[in-house]
Amino acid sequence: MKKLEKQQVFKDPLYGYIHVDFELIKKLIDSSLFQRLRRVRQLSGVQMVFHGAEHSRFSHSLGVYEIANRFLTVPDIKKALSERDKLVFLSAALLHDIGHGAYSHAFEDIFGVNHETIGAALIIENEELRSILDAIDKDFAWDIASVLKKKNKFPLIEQLISSQLDVDRLDYLERDAYFTGAAYGHIDLDRLIRVLYIKDGQVVFKLSGIHAIENYLISRYHMYWQVYYHPVSRAYEVVLEKIYLRVKDLLLSGFKFEGNVDPLKRVIDNPNDLSSYIEIDDFYINGLIASFTKSKDNILKELSLDFLNRRIWGYINDTLENKNKIEELKNYFKPEELKYFTSHRTVENSTYKDDEEKFGDKIYILLDNGKISTLKEQSKIIESLMLSGTKTDPKFFYRKR
Amino acid sequence: MKKLEKQQVFKDPLYGYIHVDFELIKKLIDSSLFQRLRRVRQLSGVQMVFHGAEHSRFSHSLGVYEIANRFLTVPDIKKALSERDKLVFLSAALLHDIGHGAYSHAFEDIFGVNHETIGAALIIENEELRSILDAIDKDFAWDIASVLKKKNKFPLIEQLISSQLDVDRLDYLERDAYFTGAAYGHIDLDRLIRVLYIKDGQVVFKLSGIHAIENYLISRYHMYWQVYYHPVSRAYEVVLEKIYLRVKDLLLSGFKFEGNVDPLKRVIDNPNDLSSYIEIDDFYINGLIASFTKSKDNILKELSLDFLNRRIWGYINDTLENKNKIEELKNYFKPEELKYFTSHRTVENSTYKDDEEKFGDKIYILLDNGKISTLKEQSKIIESLMLSGTKTDPKFFYRKR
Amino acid sequence: MKKLEKQQVFKDPLYGYIHVDFELIKKLIDSSLFQRLRRVRQLSGVQMVFHGAEHSRFSHSLGVYEIANRFLTVPDIKKALSERDKLVFLSAALLHDIGHGAYSHAFEDIFGVNHETIGAALIIENEELRSILDAIDKDFAWDIASVLKKKNKFPLIEQLISSQLDVDRLDYLERDAYFTGAAYGHIDLDRLIRVLYIKDGQVVFKLSGIHAIENYLISRYHMYWQVYYHPVSRAYEVVLEKIYLRVKDLLLSGFKFEGNVDPLKRVIDNPNDLSSYIEIDDFYINGLIASFTKSKDNILKELSLDFLNRRIWGYINDTLENKNKIEELKNYFKPEELKYFTSHRTVENSTYKDDEEKFGDKIYILLDNGKISTLKEQSKIIESLMLSGTKTDPKFFYRKR
Amino acid sequence: MKKLEKQQVFKDPLYGYIHVDFELIKKLIDSSLFQRLRRVRQLSGVQMVFHGAEHSRFSHSLGVYEIANRFLTVPDIKKALSERDKLVFLSAALLHDIGHGAYSHAFEDIFGVNHETIGAALIIENEELRSILDAIDKDFAWDIASVLKKKNKFPLIEQLISSQLDVDRLDYLERDAYFTGAAYGHIDLDRLIRVLYIKDGQVVFKLSGIHAIENYLISRYHMYWQVYYHPVSRAYEVVLEKIYLRVKDLLLSGFKFEGNVDPLKRVIDNPNDLSSYIEIDDFYINGLIASFTKSKDNILKELSLDFLNRRIWGYINDTLENKNKIEELKNYFKPEELKYFTSHRTVENSTYKDDEEKFGDKIYILLDNGKISTLKEQSKIIESLMLSGTKTDPKFFYRKR
Repeated sequence: MKKLEKQQVFKDPLYGYIHVDFELIKKLIDSSLFQRLRRVRQLSGVQMVFHGAEHSRFSHSLGVYEIANRFLTVPDIKKALSERDKLVFLSAALLHDIGHGAYSHAFEDIFGVNHETIGAALIIENEELRSILDAIDKDFAWDIASVLKKKNKFPLIEQLISSQLDVDRLDYLERDAYFTGAAYGHIDLDRLIRVLYIKDGQVVFKLSGIHAIENYLISRYHMYWQVYYHPVSRAYEVVLEKIYLRVKDLLLSGFKFEGNVDPLKRVIDNPNDLSSYIEIDDFYINGLIASFTKSKDNILKELSLDFLNRRIWGYINDTLENKNKIEELKNYFKPEELKYFTSHRTVENSTYKDDEEKFGDKIYILLDNGKISTLKEQSKIIESLMLSGTKTDPKFFYRKR
Repeated sequence: MKKLEKQQVFKDPLYGYIHVDFELIKKLIDSSLFQRLRRVRQLSGVQMVFHGAEHSRFSHSLGVYEIANRFLTVPDIKKALSERDKLVFLSAALLHDIGHGAYSHAFEDIFGVNHETIGAALIIENEELRSILDAIDKDFAWDIASVLKKKNKFPLIEQLISSQLDVDRLDYLERDAYFTGAAYGHIDLDRLIRVLYIKDGQVVFKLSGIHAIENYLISRYHMYWQVYYHPVSRAYEVVLEKIYLRVKDLLLSGFKFEGNVDPLKRVIDNPNDLSSYIEIDDFYINGLIASFTKSKDNILKELSLDFLNRRIWGYINDTLENKNKIEELKNYFKPEELKYFTSHRTVENSTYKDDEEKFGDKIYILLDNGKISTLKEQSKIIESLMLSGTKTDPKFFYRKR
Repeated sequence: MKKLEKQQVFKDPLYGYIHVDFELIKKLIDSSLFQRLRRVRQLSGVQMVFHGAEHSRFSHSLGVYEIANRFLTVPDIKKALSERDKLVFLSAALLHDIGHGAYSHAFEDIFGVNHETIGAALIIENEELRSILDAIDKDFAWDIASVLKKKNKFPLIEQLISSQLDVDRLDYLERDAYFTGAAYGHIDLDRLIRVLYIKDGQVVFKLSGIHAIENYLISRYHMYWQVYYHPVSRAYEVVLEKIYLRVKDLLLSGFKFEGNVDPLKRVIDNPNDLSSYIEIDDFYINGLIASFTKSKDNILKELSLDFLNRRIWGYINDTLENKNKIEELKNYFKPEELKYFTSHRTVENSTYKDDEEKFGDKIYILLDNGKISTLKEQSKIIESLMLSGTKTDPKFFYRKR
Repeated sequence: MKKLEKQQVFKDPLYGYIHVDFELIKKLIDSSLFQRLRRVRQLSGVQMVFHGAEHSRFSHSLGVYEIANRFLTVPDIKKALSERDKLVFLSAALLHDIGHGAYSHAFEDIFGVNHETIGAALIIENEELRSILDAIDKDFAWDIASVLKKKNKFPLIEQLISSQLDVDRLDYLERDAYFTGAAYGHIDLDRLIRVLYIKDGQVVFKLSGIHAIENYLISRYHMYWQVYYHPVSRAYEVVLEKIYLRVKDLLLSGFKFEGNVDPLKRVIDNPNDLSSYIEIDDFYINGLIASFTKSKDNILKELSLDFLNRRIWGYINDTLENKNKIEELKNYFKPEELKYFTSHRTVENSTYKDDEEKFGDKIYILLDNGKISTLKEQSKIIESLMLSGTKTDPKFFYRKR
């Protein structure tokens, strides 16, 4: 577990500095695969509504690492993890998004891949990453992959990386709030860390910190409904998905594209073609979409112009009372256009899915008498948030003429 | 001067909201040319050191507009400008960077174009912009172009848009500080606005606000030396410039590129080919550089890999005492590589030029007795900053092997 | 409605500046009675837990005024209020706490006075205030008093000054959060102002702003339970109340005090003795308590030492299961001490009362179809917060030996 | 060096939390003498201009302790200090202002005492403090006193506690900026700590951090001229000083006061009467001044009314060209009033003295070659600030009629 001669830092607008002590972490950050995350923005369509939200998964990943680093100051975590475990934790935190491609959700939906599976595969198969990780020991890469795939070999680390209150969410809520300028989303991280304990291998929070958890969950609730589920963001993501859909259909029909669609083609042919997959970053996709604005295919051309020039689609609530209106809207399109120019959607098939209903059962509270309860049992406000959190906000989106 | 039925706002992390009252402004923001600024990042190489600095010229341009909007609350400005003048001011503030391309400085240096000239030309020649601006009156587009070109038709507006203390700098210092996380760069905008007066057509600041101005200039000094002139940022910009240089040389030699270099070619052939120029945004250039990583030309390939994988070049002070060392470093390269893999540079040929020496003479102070003096005469600290601000920090940059 | 020649400002850490345009407001701020609020701290016992919370009602009152000032930019409010009404609104906002004495709640409970009644009386009877207010017109003072007493002469202004979402709360939640350092309590004031409308004389908020209201109410909920109802704050307030109680009992028994208790005596004798009442600020009471530390009366002496040296009392939940423990604790005290050294309390008899149950019914939401609904009907999260908000947290407090 | 079972924290608006690990520190904080600092405000007259600045020396002292605590993470400091030395450092940081009385500067000037001497004496002589400190060892109290008196027994700790860049200044600049709302005064503490080294027992800062130091000194410069030396603050302090002067003269003449002036009298008779001295806090003095508003002595009465009702005195520059005007102003007063109702002052006899001229020579810079230089030699901007920093801003203050 070799340490750097001198701690290296990265200036961060949220935490002041990101602190790097281990040589391993430094090398992972410098790897091409991690640097590639600079070219994948964190919030797809959201930046069309909140212009400040232009930050990348690179910044976010550094932030998640820094929070993991601060979690390591918690006495119970310090005790529970060996030195090697700590490195597993920090590395997994840093690399948790390594498999993300451009506008992942839409991409994955259309092309049938999954960024988590790909992330784990990259950690095992990418030569550069592998040579860095193998320097620890020959199982190290596999162990990080196992954490990301939740194989239950490191149950505590898995909880810390991915659960209802984890290092990933703690960074992105705060970071997305900072860059969007949303008034909500501020989290009392210091307090949460101070009330975090490990009991029988389970992350628990002391009852005295319950207000900080309530506040975190309500911030999350507001960030989802105010920012991530903003109808204009959703409209914008629909456009992107339709572009992918049209590209896929054209590819399968043997259409001749002007831009270089080879990496996409190879991924469709073989979803395990990792080297092609990692070429597909925002820079690549955006360049491609720019080239599509001159496409001979009119549908692709129009969708691409919508995307680049921010022609936001229309939307209305997809409810019974709007049934006729929606039919009318659909009638404006030619049958062959309908598939590409309209969409019925709920937030459940949005980029930002949040299984809100269950959070109260999955966050554990350590009572003063030493017993463990759930958040839902201890907090009326959360119990009710769980009940209120089930709305799916179905909307019909359509290209405006 | 048609107003929107209801004021429209954009959530901004710095100012809370950007407020839009005029239909004209709304339409300009929605135009493709303005939306294109989303695809041009504000800080080229700086983001390689300060990972938070991923914001675009779109955000910055909205910010400059908002500050102009607030300047319109200053009694003296209100009085000095007609309703039409106000629209000229707001539009010019919004559009001041409309001619920016990808990584402009390096681009302009190599390809011999100028974003300000292009910006003015776009305002006159771009059909979409023109149809929006002509709705005010037939001279309106020309008037905005004249402000950007400083033709002295609107001397007051020109001062407010571009001088030693203008709406452009007030936004970018504050915004770049916010996104980088730099501790410096915070400006007391409210105070500056409160002490701003117009005297004989000249922007002046009351003596009682001199501390706010000192603070602004020192923040600016720190932002330049801490952020914009950070040696790693400068090293990164050198790489970019070398890529442009190699592309240009290869183009002239008739080399066959893999990626689509047509827009670049057309701009070289005809610097007035505006429609080609505006295709050259960050998305396009980054996609191109990605394609260069597979180039048959080795120099282009290596430079592109340096750029994408953040292989930072080395640098040492370009001083007499390092003369031998620099010669030694140069000897490692083949003669034909030298032009592409090494660079002697001062901050004066950096992307971020700041004519610091003169600021004290160009900011005017309104004394209590009604006379006008200069900042330099009134502030010893600024007088000395002017003397101390002349360093050029010459450095020799070289590709690491 | 005479305006100042030049707008005057006060630097404020929350809002940047407090802006004063009217001569009337300037004169009210400069009056002795308003300056007296510098000597009355905003948060009594809370500062014993949150050491930053040392701010006065003076700062808060300026803040409430500033928010009122910003409310006047709302189109519907602008339309609904005449020029004179606006001054009534601003003055009432500024003076709403003018009747506050030192540690008011405890004081009022023991001595049977009420700061709102006194505030209204002061506005009518204080010579200096009266001469300032009469300069507007002879009814002006009476109108402000009528607003503070909610006489329904100015129903809209009364709503804006004191309701479930009013200028008073908007300032104190944000201000108390700022000074305590509480992570919660941040309110999206800009957004709330943007969605505020007047409908049939009723303040309503557009449905699209419901998240900002939810966030406000949840911030309020957290500020109450995290800050205002912090058990140590409550313990500290109990001590203060017991001091007042002992002083009162001793006064009635003819005890000879060392300090100057005359103003207290006169207020007991005649609760309408306003000139004595306004002498009773924090400076006076704290000086008095300091003098009590040398009192010949042992109970008063001990209570005063507890207060000055922050000897926090003990507390346990006042529940059935603790019944025996409480009895045991009581047994340590002599019968004559019990009244002064122990206390059964719920948050309902705390300084900070918050009628939480009803807020959802009293905030009105303007639906897209123009109909008016209540917050409770529109927000499941608020409906449930209303249900969850009924806890009274009964505690038994006792002097530690 | 007994540690607490569980780290205790105090919520702080600047640093999130103040962290207490040692039992000793906890006990010192709980002592009556330290709690007394809650009753001594940090900024005397400044709060009359900046209404937010109502914070006490208690908050500031906790803050200085916290910064000292963070300094202990610096590798070189960790190495240089034994465990006991660390406790000496933390305790001295916490107690550095323990000798402060109400409105100290004016008080000390008139009554001939000195808060630093008194602080050291209290540490040795106060029973409660002594019993806490003696628990470490019998020399401990003496060692802390020796640090505060700069006896050179602990030269490194003395530098850290009190020099041109010390834990005291780092807290108060940041804290005073936070509470006043001043736009300046923000310091990059993290960066300063990262570049701090010890070389031959001397605190030095690496050249790479020179911008953070420049920024600190310029912030300090702005805080002094914008906040501490604000003419209205100075005017207010003059009033206070005149009150003290009048009280002293009346005491010596045997005047019968209405309020309890005994503690003052005892301190005049015997400046070493510590138990009387510590009774003199803001609460006491403010109570006293309130009682003076009914004094039979007219001068004392008027001064006290000026103080309580914020009747700010007038002021003009005390320059040759204003000589006649000043004479004229003096002529309005009766000869016996002149001493109490007028004052010639420079910032050098202000509460806030800042020996600015020398800072550049006293901050040491560690060059890349290992040699030590001074800040002045390395920073042109500081060199010039030193030259510009000599202004004394002489003003004549006078009671307005």
